[in-house]
Amino acid sequence: MEQAGTTNGYTVDTRNKVKRVPDRGHYDKETVYAILDAGYLCHISFVMDDQPFIIPTLYGREDDKLYIHGANTSRLIKHLDKGVAMSLAVTHVDGIVLARSAFHHSMNYRSVVVFGHARKVPDAGKENALYIISESVLKGRWNESRLPNAKELKATTVLEIEIEQASAKIRTGGPRDEKEDYALDIWAGVLPLEVRKLPPVSDELLKEGVELAPSVRDAGS
Amino acid sequence: MEQAGTTNGYTVDTRNKVKRVPDRGHYDKETVYAILDAGYLCHISFVMDDQPFIIPTLYGREDDKLYIHGANTSRLIKHLDKGVAMSLAVTHVDGIVLARSAFHHSMNYRSVVVFGHARKVPDAGKENALYIISESVLKGRWNESRLPNAKELKATTVLEIEIEQASAKIRTGGPRDEKEDYALDIWAGVLPLEVRKLPPVSDELLKEGVELAPSVRDAGS
Repeated sequence: MEQAGTTNGYTVDTRNKVKRVPDRGHYDKETVYAILDAGYLCHISFVMDDQPFIIPTLYGREDDKLYIHGANTSRLIKHLDKGVAMSLAVTHVDGIVLARSAFHHSMNYRSVVVFGHARKVPDAGKENALYIISESVLKGRWNESRLPNAKELKATTVLEIEIEQASAKIRTGGPRDEKEDYALDIWAGVLPLEVRKLPPVSDELLKEGVELAPSVRDAGS
Repeated sequence: MEQAGTTNGYTVDTRNKVKRVPDRGHYDKETVYAILDAGYLCHISFVMDDQPFIIPTLYGREDDKLYIHGANTSRLIKHLDKGVAMSLAVTHVDGIVLARSAFHHSMNYRSVVVFGHARKVPDAGKENALYIISESVLKGRWNESRLPNAKELKATTVLEIEIEQASAKIRTGGPRDEKEDYALDIWAGVLPLEVRKLPPVSDELLKEGVELAPSVRDAGS
């Protein structure tokens, strides 16, 4: 198992090295954590009987660990719990980069790929791990909710993935065209993209008089 | 290799069956295509030396085929070109579902998982495949751009993934709580999410007098 070479960065080898456009690659924890903390949905890649699978799932981060959860009966959960190798990606798209040439079109993005193995979070740590995932999706919501009872906790498996290796890849800025193409009468630039929160929709069965939750009110747009 | 059982749906077996909350699962091409066509970024899962990898990449769809592209030297491209098994996911998050209980919190989403093998698009089909990918990212942009020259086409590998099997998973609507929790004084509902386009940013080196491209102007917000 590779370990972080220093307290601030991950070991770089053929598994996690960014080969295409290497100056977009980052291996320090500050950069990796910032990208992980800006998201809550990851895609997980794992292998069963030589078949690669991929599954989107929610996550939360605590130190060098990621938590995911699922029903005890879930295929992902049951398989990863065996300690098999996996990788996980989080990708934020920040804009479409429009170059003068089709060839130099690109995206602005921040992405992280993590390598690790999952293991079951013991019962004593389960509620904290679920809290971390919940806060990652919507800060403040956990403490507004009716918390899980023993039966609900028992039906849920929480896995912890220690980040053994990771790499971040970031592209920012405008297009980079071939020198001769700057003379063309073609518009070039960036079309920025953003995920926005729209006005909340109350449940039809909302109890009369119940006001909007602070977590939702403060979530911004 | 599994083939579509009918012209309108994919064969369902243990590989692609949605097991958790099976009524969220869909296997018809109309549903699968609609989710694929609403996106342009996928995550691809593949295995090299028993290690699962995951990589985000752009795609476009044509009939029952997905196209992805990359530099000839890219690890993903070189590996998938060998015809290895892969899976691919596209996920759109539509909202955060806030239940009264922490346990019943959920997401509204539309996701597709595709199983298939990649193969190289022959030179004769390369430009069309790149056009499909480009249109998937921003409709109309290809024909505004300086099109790829022979050298650029040669440096790019395009892979075609025939959709052998797929499944879609969709959740919509409000929270579903335990009966007794509806009496709690806890706000419940949905916080809808949306990807928005922000005002375009012209390249600093834009030639004087060049107006905003119609593809960008018409992209909406």
